Amino acid sequence: MRFISETSSDGVHEQLFVLGEVPGVLWTPEGAVGTRPLVLMGHGGGQHKKAPGIVARARRFAAECGYAVVAVDVPAHGDRPKVEEYDRILTENRARMEAGEALAPLIAEFQALVARRTVPEWRAVLDAVQQLGRVGSGPVGYWGVSLGCGLGVPFVAAEPRVRAAVLGLGGASPSASASPSPSAEAAARITVPVQFLVQWDDERVPRAQGLALFDALASVEKTLHANPGKHGEIPAFELDSALSFFARHLG
Amino acid sequence: MRFISETSSDGVHEQLFVLGEVPGVLWTPEGAVGTRPLVLMGHGGGQHKKAPGIVARARRFAAECGYAVVAVDVPAHGDRPKVEEYDRILTENRARMEAGEALAPLIAEFQALVARRTVPEWRAVLDAVQQLGRVGSGPVGYWGVSLGCGLGVPFVAAEPRVRAAVLGLGGASPSASASPSPSAEAAARITVPVQFLVQWDDERVPRAQGLALFDALASVEKTLHANPGKHGEIPAFELDSALSFFARHLG
Repeated sequence: MRFISETSSDGVHEQLFVLGEVPGVLWTPEGAVGTRPLVLMGHGGGQHKKAPGIVARARRFAAECGYAVVAVDVPAHGDRPKVEEYDRILTENRARMEAGEALAPLIAEFQALVARRTVPEWRAVLDAVQQLGRVGSGPVGYWGVSLGCGLGVPFVAAEPRVRAAVLGLGGASPSASASPSPSAEAAARITVPVQFLVQWDDERVPRAQGLALFDALASVEKTLHANPGKHGEIPAFELDSALSFFARHLG
Repeated sequence: MRFISETSSDGVHEQLFVLGEVPGVLWTPEGAVGTRPLVLMGHGGGQHKKAPGIVARARRFAAECGYAVVAVDVPAHGDRPKVEEYDRILTENRARMEAGEALAPLIAEFQALVARRTVPEWRAVLDAVQQLGRVGSGPVGYWGVSLGCGLGVPFVAAEPRVRAAVLGLGGASPSASASPSPSAEAAARITVPVQFLVQWDDERVPRAQGLALFDALASVEKTLHANPGKHGEIPAFELDSALSFFARHLG
């Protein structure tokens, strides 16, 4: 883990780093000493580790809860090179969509492919960040919606250090369908508390598929928050709600 | 409005009163002076104005937010006499259910009938309570689930003083059905912010009907909170969430 730059403002210390080929950013409360909860945030499709929504959430988690927060670029996003295989699939998917195939299963299939790289990358990021004295091996949370949910579901399912997750804007085939989607299969392995966000008028994830992914989670405590509006229009008060949720589960 | 008794404990003042034939209870912060937000709470079926859940919520709204809170007995509940017409209908409904009719529309029909009495009663309660110097004409909130939702939806639709409502455990016919239920018609006249609670495994309100009632609300800001469990198993953290919701909208 190699630190590249650091800045501080409004009580939050921000450091850019590279771990292997993965560029990331770590936020900690200024002057932090000792073990604390750590939240890993997964960004949305086309976004990156320092997208405005990620930064705004991370700074509040650090400043108000005293957490460490880490975000990294997904392959083919932010400071990472294009991936030829992904470009090829995305081109194929556009053609399949134009030929009448439904968007949602194509997205789910693609996200499952990307997750094969991001799950081990994110686990390595946890390993490295938790070695730092000002982070340590405290409880871990995950926050990610849209692509951050598609990649987050298999990550949370695979990583026992994660104790609570905010997920959403993702879907699964309703359970009546013949073949369960990979997201539903992974969701059925998640048992930690989940706060799950659905946009009621989501133009990308059909409502029934969002509800089906919530339904598929095996967590005893899971809470669905649905709000009117399109895919990108999560209301601001859901950030307060995420803070309360993590405070309840990570301390 | 005639006050019958009063007690104080843990910073909350509780007064029993009668307004006409309606017995009620008013909670205010001890030593309260001047105008403050007022929350009217509607109890569930078979419950009453001092059911444990009502009292627990009311005391937290008063102690933590400084609100006034009022609850009254619904006709044929608590200290109020039986209503022969209701008994007759409930007996008929049991027979109709045994003959194979669905429970939910019968409940909705009955609640619409009771609401014809409770809507004017509750409006009169607001009038009387807001005359008190320690309550005044501040913003009004409504909290009610199950029967408290069935009666709350037409109340919130009719009463412009209500600025925000927590509702839930109620349903409406999904919009595809031929005749819209009375609850959906009233919900379509509600435009204030609503936090709406659904129990994911509700044995009394089919999931699709709960979602349909949320869908029918005309509010620009409405937020659905769905949690696993049966009708009576709303998780404790939803009370914290209601406090945040009212704090956001009533101040």
